[in-house]
Parts: sequence; structure tokens; C-alpha cells
Amino acid sequence: MPVKCRFCERPAFIKLHYPKMYLCPEHFTEYFERKVKRTIERYKLLRPDERVLVVVSGGKDSAVTAHVLKKLGYSIECLHINLGIGEYSEKSESYARKQCEGIAPLHIVRVKELLGKGIGEVRTRRPTCSYCGLTKRYIFNKFAYDNGFDVIATGHNLDDEASFIFANLMNWNTQYLAKQGPLLPGEDRFVKKVKPLYELTEREVVAYALANGIEYHIEECPHAAGATTLEYKSILNDMEEKRPGTKINFVKGYLRKKKLFEAELEEYELGKCSVCGMPAQGERCSFCRFWGLETALDFKINRNNKTIET
Amino acid sequence: MPVKCRFCERPAFIKLHYPKMYLCPEHFTEYFERKVKRTIERYKLLRPDERVLVVVSGGKDSAVTAHVLKKLGYSIECLHINLGIGEYSEKSESYARKQCEGIAPLHIVRVKELLGKGIGEVRTRRPTCSYCGLTKRYIFNKFAYDNGFDVIATGHNLDDEASFIFANLMNWNTQYLAKQGPLLPGEDRFVKKVKPLYELTEREVVAYALANGIEYHIEECPHAAGATTLEYKSILNDMEEKRPGTKINFVKGYLRKKKLFEAELEEYELGKCSVCGMPAQGERCSFCRFWGLETALDFKINRNNKTIET
Repeated sequence: MPVKCRFCERPAFIKLHYPKMYLCPEHFTEYFERKVKRTIERYKLLRPDERVLVVVSGGKDSAVTAHVLKKLGYSIECLHINLGIGEYSEKSESYARKQCEGIAPLHIVRVKELLGKGIGEVRTRRPTCSYCGLTKRYIFNKFAYDNGFDVIATGHNLDDEASFIFANLMNWNTQYLAKQGPLLPGEDRFVKKVKPLYELTEREVVAYALANGIEYHIEECPHAAGATTLEYKSILNDMEEKRPGTKINFVKGYLRKKKLFEAELEEYELGKCSVCGMPAQGERCSFCRFWGLETALDFKINRNNKTIET
Repeated sequence: MPVKCRFCERPAFIKLHYPKMYLCPEHFTEYFERKVKRTIERYKLLRPDERVLVVVSGGKDSAVTAHVLKKLGYSIECLHINLGIGEYSEKSESYARKQCEGIAPLHIVRVKELLGKGIGEVRTRRPTCSYCGLTKRYIFNKFAYDNGFDVIATGHNLDDEASFIFANLMNWNTQYLAKQGPLLPGEDRFVKKVKPLYELTEREVVAYALANGIEYHIEECPHAAGATTLEYKSILNDMEEKRPGTKINFVKGYLRKKKLFEAELEEYELGKCSVCGMPAQGERCSFCRFWGLETALDFKINRNNKTIET
């Protein structure tokens, strides 16, 4: 006989481990959305009147973020960045399109059309994942800034955060540890960034997508193969299995102690990039420098601009 | 055909991974002892004229510590604490006796004779490993203090240190992280403590014991079963296998950043225990309180004192 949902007569569809609880799809959905709502309240991530840009990759996390924020009544629009990684990126874009249908306007920026080369095609000594991150962060921030969004929401879940902290502790990158969390406040032309799924595990996000018919690109990026992040996630999963609650307690412990790492932050003056006007440590910002730009990218929404679709 | 030693024609007996190197027993022994010597110099652990008390448990680490310190010319005596854990402790004591033969005078303190109960026999809510640690630390410190030793050497190896740091990071015990390292300076009646094997892995210590005919008690303490320390060691071993150098880099990174945790240290006045006169946070020290003592234990070496054998 199947185990029943804790709150109704329907058969359970997921067993949560922390807190231990069997739930049907409807009650799990309710549980999940309440948890996102509580995360938003606890860390003061969003105000009801803010214009939110959700960065959707085609994967589960950002799709679920858009879906839940919409359901909670926030005013959202979505941005997909097509990274130009061959078929992988084509599939990602087509998932992003499906995910946003009936949910929110979708804007698309294609790296290859915009910058001439896709991620992975640039000849550089810099690791691919490193300049990919740089490129994505610049684009979604500039896009949000150019179009007057108050806040950027990303799909980072508890597993992402736990493995990020874990990795940076293993390598003692204390400067990175000083600046993480569910909310990165806006400053100058950096738009505020929030992570509504901060306290939800990857497993819960997958279950939410499943229970709510959200389809997503399941493949890992071809450049992520062998990434130590995946190894750290698997270590944390093993620990979580032995002692449920490990991840959330680890991350909450980090948030309580994070201030210790602030002593490591170097003070530096941020100037303005001579190309794009965005904050820069040197004469040009690292994005304009990396891509060798001579004129600023402009992301103002405009139906004549081919790199952007609304 | 067997692989040859890097430095001679003999067949290799161990493959080191970091740095990668095949060595015969003799050249491995030389490598190991040089590394201990360098550890002692780098962290200023010992001066040639100091009287050193080596705490020997019967296990490999402390036996190797005593053996190498003796070989390096230090003036050592050994202390074995028989914990009163049935046959396990009897075996440990007999290994400790063998290990010290021809090396150094051995003193023995037996917890059960001294305090009426062995470790594991006390009715208390405090976990066994916790009051065992408290008891051992008190005894070896008081023993060293009563007998005028300048320094206490313990067998902690790189794996012990890495897993200790790892565990305390996972649980954000930042106060413990402020006070670890290869050298804990003496203060008041706390005798200086040093860890000469700080930079040597468990695997290297096992190999040294093997190459030098040092026999040791191989069993884990029965109370350690299921201890998370063993789990953390195994996680670190997996990481080390994938990326040789993980443990030493993790521990050295910790030593560089350790000062960050000092902000967490609470300032408190240490008074004197009303029973034994040793440093205490309250009216009595935690050892005298735990064991309900009304008179101080005296460890002055004295052939009439049954708890001590020279």
C-alpha cells in the first residue's frame, strides 16, 4: 500500500528528509511555495512593488524561480542568455521559451551574435567557466540596469550555495566568502541580486518542476564536465544522507559567521569603465577588456535590436 | 620488474603522491625524519635543551613521534594513560611498553585506579569521547606540570588536523578554529604542546612504522565507532586521491587564515581551581568537577606512588 500524504488521503509523491514528511504533489507544491515566500521575507529579498528580472537558463532552477515568483504575485520579466555553445545552447533557448510562455515576457541575448564568438570559442588562457561567468554576470546586470529593473533574481538553490561555500573553504578563498548570501545589495550601477531558492535543495526543485509540469534542459553544460563543483555536491549529498539537515545547517552557520571573512575584503576605489561606464577596477571593466570592446553594449529593450527579443 | 627507489638501486617500498616519488625503506625513513625536522624548525616547536614529554597511546602516531624525536636527539620521556577500556586498554598499554623499550623512560597513569572508573563506565550525559578527551588532556598537562617538563609532544598527524579543521568548519565551531595549530603555547600552568607530525599523512606514518619495525595497536577505540571524524577522514582521502596535495594545502591555508577566527575568542579571566590549583573558568576546573574530586591529584614521579611507573 502506498504511503499517504501527511495532509490528505492522496498517495505521497515525495519523502522529505528534513523535516521528515511524506507529501502529495499538491501539498508539496504548497510547502515549496511557502518556503520560497518565507525565504523572501526572512532575508528581505523583494518588495511587492519591485520590477524583477529573472535570469532563465533553460534549466530547472531558474524556471522554477520564475514560476514561483509569478505565482506569488511579483512583477517579473525574464532574460535568457544564449551562450553560443552549439546545440547545447539551442536546446537551452528553446526550453527557456517554453518555460516563459504564459508566465512572463522573455528577452533573449545571444552571446555569439552580440560578441562574435560563443562561450568556448575564445582563444584565451582564462578557463572557460571563468569567462562564461564574467560574461553572464555583466550581461544580466547591464540588461537590468539599462532597462530600469530593481532587482535580478537567479535560480541558485541550497546545493549550489553549500557547494560554493564548501569549495571556497577548501581553498580558503576568504574574499569570496565575505560576499555571498541570499541577497547581494545593489550599489552604484550594480543592480541588487537575490536568490529566492536559497533554502531549497536541488532535489526539492526537481520535485517541484515535476509536480508542476515544468520541463527543462537536463544536460550539464559540456564545459562543466569534471568540474569540482559536481564533486563537492556529491560529497555534501553523502553527508546529507547520513545526517539530514547537514546542508541547511552548514549554510545557515556560514551566514551567522560570514562577518569574520569581511576582514579580508580589500578596500578599493571603483571607477567607471571608459568604454561602457559601468563600475570598473581599472580603466576598463573586466568585461569590456576581455571582449576587447570599443563601444558600449546597449541593452535597452527595442524591437529593432536584433540581439533582443521581447 | 619492481620500480626502483628514486635515490638508489633498491626496489621501492612506497609511492609518495605529493611530491610524486618512489622510495626504498631507508630513503623513505630519511625523507620522513627530515620532514619532521623541518616541521620542528618551521613552526619553532622545540629547542634542543627542552625536556619533552611524549604522550604515547600504543597507536602508531605517538610511537613514531617518540621514535623520531629520540633519533633527532631530543631529551624525551613518555607517558601512557591507560583509559580503563577493558581489553582494548590492556593491549594499548602493552604496545606502549614495547614501543618505549630502549627509547625512553615510560610513565603510566591508569584512569581506573586513579579515579575509580574507566572511560565509558561513568554515568553521565556527556558523550564518552568528550570526557575522555577532557581527562587525557588534564592528566598529561598536570603530569608535565608536576614534573617540570617544558613541552608535551602528541602524535597528531596531517589527517587528524585536516579532519579536525574540516569538522569544525562544517559545524562552524569558530572558537575551536581560533586555537589550533602545530604549536599551542604554554600559559600559566598550561604546558606548551607541539605536534611534530603535523605535516605528515597517516599513510606516511604507517609506512614509517612498518619500515622501522615499530609495532602498534591497530584497533580503533570501541567508543570511536561511527565517529564522524572517521567519515571526514575518508572524504578528505577521496579528495586527496583525486588531487594530491589537497590535505596539506587545506591545512596550510587554514594556518594562513586562522587569525580571522580569533575575533570569535571570548575574553575570560582564568582563575585557579579550588581543588587542584590548575587554571579554571569557574570555581573548580572542569576535570575536578567532572570527576567530583575533593583533593588534587599529584603526579610527581615517585616510585611509591602506585599510579605511576617509571
